[in-house]
Amino acid sequence: MTGIITSGEKRLVIVSGRAHPQLALDVARELGTEVLSSTAYDFANGETYVRFNESVRGCDVFVVQSHGDRVNDWLMEQLIMVDALKRASAKRITVVAPFFPYARQDKKHLGREPISARLVADMYAAAGADRIMSVDLHTAQEQGFFDGPWDHLWAQPVLVDYIKGRLDVTNAAVVSPDAGRIRVAERWANALGGSPLAFVHKTRDITRPNEAVANRVVGDVEGRSCVLVDDMIDTGGTIAKAVKVVLDAGAKDVIVAATHGVLSGPAIERLATCGAREVVITDTLPIPQGKRFERLTVLSIAPLLARAIKAVFDDGSVAELFDTTEV
Amino acid sequence: MTGIITSGEKRLVIVSGRAHPQLALDVARELGTEVLSSTAYDFANGETYVRFNESVRGCDVFVVQSHGDRVNDWLMEQLIMVDALKRASAKRITVVAPFFPYARQDKKHLGREPISARLVADMYAAAGADRIMSVDLHTAQEQGFFDGPWDHLWAQPVLVDYIKGRLDVTNAAVVSPDAGRIRVAERWANALGGSPLAFVHKTRDITRPNEAVANRVVGDVEGRSCVLVDDMIDTGGTIAKAVKVVLDAGAKDVIVAATHGVLSGPAIERLATCGAREVVITDTLPIPQGKRFERLTVLSIAPLLARAIKAVFDDGSVAELFDTTEV
Amino acid sequence: MTGIITSGEKRLVIVSGRAHPQLALDVARELGTEVLSSTAYDFANGETYVRFNESVRGCDVFVVQSHGDRVNDWLMEQLIMVDALKRASAKRITVVAPFFPYARQDKKHLGREPISARLVADMYAAAGADRIMSVDLHTAQEQGFFDGPWDHLWAQPVLVDYIKGRLDVTNAAVVSPDAGRIRVAERWANALGGSPLAFVHKTRDITRPNEAVANRVVGDVEGRSCVLVDDMIDTGGTIAKAVKVVLDAGAKDVIVAATHGVLSGPAIERLATCGAREVVITDTLPIPQGKRFERLTVLSIAPLLARAIKAVFDDGSVAELFDTTEV
Amino acid sequence: MTGIITSGEKRLVIVSGRAHPQLALDVARELGTEVLSSTAYDFANGETYVRFNESVRGCDVFVVQSHGDRVNDWLMEQLIMVDALKRASAKRITVVAPFFPYARQDKKHLGREPISARLVADMYAAAGADRIMSVDLHTAQEQGFFDGPWDHLWAQPVLVDYIKGRLDVTNAAVVSPDAGRIRVAERWANALGGSPLAFVHKTRDITRPNEAVANRVVGDVEGRSCVLVDDMIDTGGTIAKAVKVVLDAGAKDVIVAATHGVLSGPAIERLATCGAREVVITDTLPIPQGKRFERLTVLSIAPLLARAIKAVFDDGSVAELFDTTEV
Amino acid sequence: MTGIITSGEKRLVIVSGRAHPQLALDVARELGTEVLSSTAYDFANGETYVRFNESVRGCDVFVVQSHGDRVNDWLMEQLIMVDALKRASAKRITVVAPFFPYARQDKKHLGREPISARLVADMYAAAGADRIMSVDLHTAQEQGFFDGPWDHLWAQPVLVDYIKGRLDVTNAAVVSPDAGRIRVAERWANALGGSPLAFVHKTRDITRPNEAVANRVVGDVEGRSCVLVDDMIDTGGTIAKAVKVVLDAGAKDVIVAATHGVLSGPAIERLATCGAREVVITDTLPIPQGKRFERLTVLSIAPLLARAIKAVFDDGSVAELFDTTEV
Amino acid sequence: MTGIITSGEKRLVIVSGRAHPQLALDVARELGTEVLSSTAYDFANGETYVRFNESVRGCDVFVVQSHGDRVNDWLMEQLIMVDALKRASAKRITVVAPFFPYARQDKKHLGREPISARLVADMYAAAGADRIMSVDLHTAQEQGFFDGPWDHLWAQPVLVDYIKGRLDVTNAAVVSPDAGRIRVAERWANALGGSPLAFVHKTRDITRPNEAVANRVVGDVEGRSCVLVDDMIDTGGTIAKAVKVVLDAGAKDVIVAATHGVLSGPAIERLATCGAREVVITDTLPIPQGKRFERLTVLSIAPLLARAIKAVFDDGSVAELFDTTEV
Repeated sequence: MTGIITSGEKRLVIVSGRAHPQLALDVARELGTEVLSSTAYDFANGETYVRFNESVRGCDVFVVQSHGDRVNDWLMEQLIMVDALKRASAKRITVVAPFFPYARQDKKHLGREPISARLVADMYAAAGADRIMSVDLHTAQEQGFFDGPWDHLWAQPVLVDYIKGRLDVTNAAVVSPDAGRIRVAERWANALGGSPLAFVHKTRDITRPNEAVANRVVGDVEGRSCVLVDDMIDTGGTIAKAVKVVLDAGAKDVIVAATHGVLSGPAIERLATCGAREVVITDTLPIPQGKRFERLTVLSIAPLLARAIKAVFDDGSVAELFDTTEV
Repeated sequence: MTGIITSGEKRLVIVSGRAHPQLALDVARELGTEVLSSTAYDFANGETYVRFNESVRGCDVFVVQSHGDRVNDWLMEQLIMVDALKRASAKRITVVAPFFPYARQDKKHLGREPISARLVADMYAAAGADRIMSVDLHTAQEQGFFDGPWDHLWAQPVLVDYIKGRLDVTNAAVVSPDAGRIRVAERWANALGGSPLAFVHKTRDITRPNEAVANRVVGDVEGRSCVLVDDMIDTGGTIAKAVKVVLDAGAKDVIVAATHGVLSGPAIERLATCGAREVVITDTLPIPQGKRFERLTVLSIAPLLARAIKAVFDDGSVAELFDTTEV
Repeated sequence: MTGIITSGEKRLVIVSGRAHPQLALDVARELGTEVLSSTAYDFANGETYVRFNESVRGCDVFVVQSHGDRVNDWLMEQLIMVDALKRASAKRITVVAPFFPYARQDKKHLGREPISARLVADMYAAAGADRIMSVDLHTAQEQGFFDGPWDHLWAQPVLVDYIKGRLDVTNAAVVSPDAGRIRVAERWANALGGSPLAFVHKTRDITRPNEAVANRVVGDVEGRSCVLVDDMIDTGGTIAKAVKVVLDAGAKDVIVAATHGVLSGPAIERLATCGAREVVITDTLPIPQGKRFERLTVLSIAPLLARAIKAVFDDGSVAELFDTTEV
Repeated sequence: MTGIITSGEKRLVIVSGRAHPQLALDVARELGTEVLSSTAYDFANGETYVRFNESVRGCDVFVVQSHGDRVNDWLMEQLIMVDALKRASAKRITVVAPFFPYARQDKKHLGREPISARLVADMYAAAGADRIMSVDLHTAQEQGFFDGPWDHLWAQPVLVDYIKGRLDVTNAAVVSPDAGRIRVAERWANALGGSPLAFVHKTRDITRPNEAVANRVVGDVEGRSCVLVDDMIDTGGTIAKAVKVVLDAGAKDVIVAATHGVLSGPAIERLATCGAREVVITDTLPIPQGKRFERLTVLSIAPLLARAIKAVFDDGSVAELFDTTEV
Repeated sequence: MTGIITSGEKRLVIVSGRAHPQLALDVARELGTEVLSSTAYDFANGETYVRFNESVRGCDVFVVQSHGDRVNDWLMEQLIMVDALKRASAKRITVVAPFFPYARQDKKHLGREPISARLVADMYAAAGADRIMSVDLHTAQEQGFFDGPWDHLWAQPVLVDYIKGRLDVTNAAVVSPDAGRIRVAERWANALGGSPLAFVHKTRDITRPNEAVANRVVGDVEGRSCVLVDDMIDTGGTIAKAVKVVLDAGAKDVIVAATHGVLSGPAIERLATCGAREVVITDTLPIPQGKRFERLTVLSIAPLLARAIKAVFDDGSVAELFDTTEV
Repeated sequence: MTGIITSGEKRLVIVSGRAHPQLALDVARELGTEVLSSTAYDFANGETYVRFNESVRGCDVFVVQSHGDRVNDWLMEQLIMVDALKRASAKRITVVAPFFPYARQDKKHLGREPISARLVADMYAAAGADRIMSVDLHTAQEQGFFDGPWDHLWAQPVLVDYIKGRLDVTNAAVVSPDAGRIRVAERWANALGGSPLAFVHKTRDITRPNEAVANRVVGDVEGRSCVLVDDMIDTGGTIAKAVKVVLDAGAKDVIVAATHGVLSGPAIERLATCGAREVVITDTLPIPQGKRFERLTVLSIAPLLARAIKAVFDDGSVAELFDTTEV
């Protein structure tokens, strides 16, 4: 047979944007490798420049970026990285966006609105991304916005493992901050071994629309250590109110647990003073020192991402990570 | 200036698949035109053949099809129609799918599942569709599955108008068959002028997972004429049980209202015997004589579709039809 | 070099739709493996659901489906399988459609017709198929409907091998059922070592159009064992008539040979009573017990498919399978 | 309503490549307009340059080019024209390729061959063509190589109209030069009002493969004026031999009729000396003076193209031009 | 003919991002219309929201945005606007980006760099833009980064018209700040009626590389009013130095003229103190009060944009605006 | 795990068009392999036919073609080769076009011009090319015309290595034939160890436009061996004049060095008689015997291409070849 034949090899590479470099470092360390060196800065008018300092030819590259604040800058930086990788002959490019940008704009509420989450997925594709990896999407339907594989990871086990050691599960309850999150709370209850469930009910008396709203706890929390669960904490208002209501209802104490710590505006103030014994989040978004307070626990999402990346690279030996049963 | 200059004209054309020809006839009549003649049949092995019997060059064509049962056959027929229109130089092709096929498969519940609703949108695009028009999608996120305009119509006003004349709104209540539909019920309550709300609660006691389930009504229905609302009725089990629970809770009577009457399997039997005073649906899907029963009222969706088609053709004079406020 | 380097591996996987599971089983057995487990069923309104029960990450997957009857259902099932594989990170997806759906609708006979075979190829591409494999396409031009590799297999050797043992080739003749198939018959004649050729001529006297039609045999069949060859048998009318004409012309006996046994409508009745000594087809389409009769021989196409799949997986060591010399 | 509203207009423009400028001039004259001025030349190394000398913004442009010899140069020139039109904001671009380039390479005869006709269609699409217009394609399946409208015109009526005046139809016969063209000949026979048919048969005795070949006429031509019909004349060998055989069979005289006059190599010599009373072709390809001889008649295809272009521009008033019944 | 026929109309609409609303207002006023009302704001984490407050169905929409600072935010806002317009059935969408974002990143200087200007063009296309309009691109090759029309406007006449009235053209000279801009300066010289040319030469003695660099004026500027021309002023360093060198060489006075006033960092300080009599730019980028100083003149680019938009809408009556002769 | 697992292999294959077969042979020999056998010829009307004579399934194929004259024929041949490879299941296809066709048409100088270099890149993509490899592009921006990797090689070291042995570098100077090429000359000066620079200046007196033009040398060349450098020599006029001017300015002797020897029209005559001691080019284009003259030296570009191809195949071990620093 004419030609030159060699055995195939494949090479996994982690690159990182500037939004949350620690996350990429942690992921690389979990994998036993390093983040590939790159150069990135902004020009005077805000245009971003990126260059990789080492060959990426033929590599299976994972582009880690976080989208907490300055989301447009970090999104554009990640897109520019993908473009550079594509032109530098990377073999496969996976966008790792633990907190998917614009995920909350996933539908038209009104006419003449965008569907920005779809736009973002299209932009990743236009730049050259082959696949996406995210943690706890706002709605599962968003995986349908991309014409390719979208690995959707589930952070709950990370949180559950930690919290199990922080309370007496035999005297715990799981509380949802509103009716829309009850199914997530159910999964928590199962994961904690069958804890009772409760939820905070905005009693705009369901039978009488347009009347004033009050919050009350449905379910039995009295004397129990309660875990108040949500997918993200943005300005913290809903969560802080829920903690108070649960405590008012006689709970022994409250631990707040959420995947994404957006923590914008008054969030820190609210969380630090709401009465929760502990607030537990992951570091899908960077949590700078200025946002940390005594009762805030930040768990590393890096081991989960690292295992998923390894599974993608090795073609599937840890498939259970990606199951999104009943979300 | 070299060339030949003429004034532009545009021509609206309605074509129809074989799933629900009456719907297209009704739409055309509302518009004051006729369905363009076509020839369609199946070959011995099930392959579908379609041809249009009149020129469609330069036309703004609306391809009306319904996807109740034999959904794959009717989907394929519609795709073939779109392909033929594209090759016959139609200027713009709008897929009119009042009940969007595979809309319930809009996300991956488990690994290695398809997202069939996205696949269907991709197939329409591959065939040559420029736009989609649907009524009451299963989830609003699905509009993000298509890279173009998707007119999402809202059938509630059609149903409300009818039902307002069928009961004393001052003594009515709106009931949701489960917690997940309360926001739809709220819109109904508002549309009826502020009726009280209720919902049927599957009391798998929320505070104790994994225990047996019973249904009960939350909210005050006693002595009231209740409107039980949902987006579709498939096998009718949930709805029939809800009617009974509402009646058991002391309701004066119950009217069931839903947009899509899939009515598969035991649905007719269940609905006819469940105790509802009336079941009101629209004809987004064909309701053959064999599925009709005394207390079933089928409202025509054709006027809504016709107004929307006219608005699309005329560029937007009835924009309020498409608003999907708060869905 | 930064990163993790491992040797590459590749994994061949066979999955099957529900149209003809035995074919996939046979192919897998030929290859020395098994069909990957999947779950598939239809919802009440005919929508299809599929899920794979084992990881397919990084795999070279062959999606075997047959399109005999219920062609739209089986086509849609196969498309859904491809979509699920794409989203589950299969590396390469080959649609195996031994009898390509809608292959006979390969051109516009009249204005405003579709080209459905192109549409089907576009749908496979939209779903995520990288390549197609088929047996004996209706016209070779159809390979141009797909923007990628289309392995076009040739079933004749399978049929010839069998038939050589069923007659005295020194006293045989090859007969084409009409003038359009003479080149196929020529290949048969060569394959049988130089048998004489004949064809059944619809003697709408070629020199006088619009007159009545009669059939007669052109060529010498008297006293010979004749092989009547075609690419498919649908309703069986043409073949059955040809058998009679050949026998009337003094043939010793007739064996009918065709690749695809569509066998719709009256085909079985016609074939069983037409006087042929034997009817030989392959199982590109499922031949259920109810369609089998004493003189029907069904050869397995699985070895041919298996060898081709192995060649595709191993990159080309059996290229001669794909040559379509002079078709 | 915010904005500026004006009535729409549309403008038809004809542009021409350098292969066959007379054809575009004739088409424009038929339409009552002129060919839009352009500048085109070749650089020293053969690269082509084109520029349009007048605005084409918003125009419906028909790009007329002919592909007789130097086919790659003329194809590239046409592609460059399409690119320039696209970038200059033409509204719709129709490639007019009366003799579609590479039409004979429409399938893979052997493994590892291209499907060049599909490639050409893809190149037109890549350059920006919205639609294609051709005359008498080599195979009708090629329309499926383009994902859009392909107007396929039929030149027979042009030829028939002329020939009807050149012979006594009551004493004519239509002859096909080989078995593969009998269906075309049948259409001719019908168009001439029911003339008898004949065809030249390569009597590689059908019943004995691999023996020497001779030609003979099947059908009655004795004493008749024969019309020998084909779609194109390339080197003229087949046609010239057929004329002799028909004359040998006692025909009174022979008129050769074909759509495309490729006339390459020895064609002129062969045709001029073959004994035909007249050879009739159209000017889909340029027929320079050096290729013309006494008995050659070249009919203008411009009226047919002009009517088709007008129909496309006006959206369909002459749809019957495009029907390709039974090809 | 079946269907409904109406005369076509078209509607021009101007929409604006938040980067430079005055520019869109000015353009709209020039056109005699208003900017279509929209709602836009940022969420707490920087995600952008946009909605249009009036129907845009069927409209020819021009999306005006400026990309001076916060370029990623304004780019993303414009993309979101395009997405919303596409989904709201706008007929044609033109991105108006007077200073094209990332235009300076138009090639790879080193391996593993992006080509960000191409990426931006791809993102506009992915969002749904049909065309682009820009003023004075960094390199003309960038038009080739978009697969569609890119109207490239030329601001020089705007600047020339103003400056002609500010000096005695019979005693003027045109000066280029470096050798790379001489051709632009030549066009200026011609536009001023044949003024002498000069340029500032970085006399890194061309014959001895790697030695120290000094600037000197090549050409005669003594006693003349000099116009120092460039395409953009970013930090102002090159321009300020050039002014001094020209004055040192005996120029009577210096007017600086440039299209794009990026004016980042120390630019204002440098320009205000460099000794130029006047600095003339256009408002392709917003020039807030804080950046204005006594000798800065900002010309409106709105009339040029308005005429180009009108020409695009009306299909080409002002084609000379778009010619970029010899750039 | 279900399926068949084997270790991956990859196979490098070189194929060649007919424009410059020697180049492919040389590249293959450098790599230690052979050019894969193919069959190619032209039909009578100029249509090209290509077939590969050996399997290319799964191969990493490099399609070597040169585009000197008959550029459209060679471009089309290369496209046809790519199409055939794609359909024959090649894994990755790299277009090797050392002198990229139509590279000089990289922008619109005037309205209604094409951007032919972008068109060519689009055509390669449409045919199925995954990557492009070129030597010394006309402008670096052209890499942005392709949505994928474009390896841009730099021939200067090849030329420098040779020339270093042909003169006394301590007494040399590097001369640019016009001002636009000074930066290329600077790289040469650096590569030669710091030679002085000079350039030929068209002294259309820069300060007085529209006057007559004369050439003079800027910089000190007296008594030095001068290297006159450019990227290509087309008709040779500019170079020949520059040689004379440099000699007139007292240079000891002149060596001309350029990458691409287009050598069209009067080039040979001009170069042979211009007084240069030696003209050095590479064989990116074929230099037939008829174009060779005594003082012409043709260096082989094959080693550079071979190293680059090996690097691409092996994923990046020679990345420095591709850096295009400061071009």
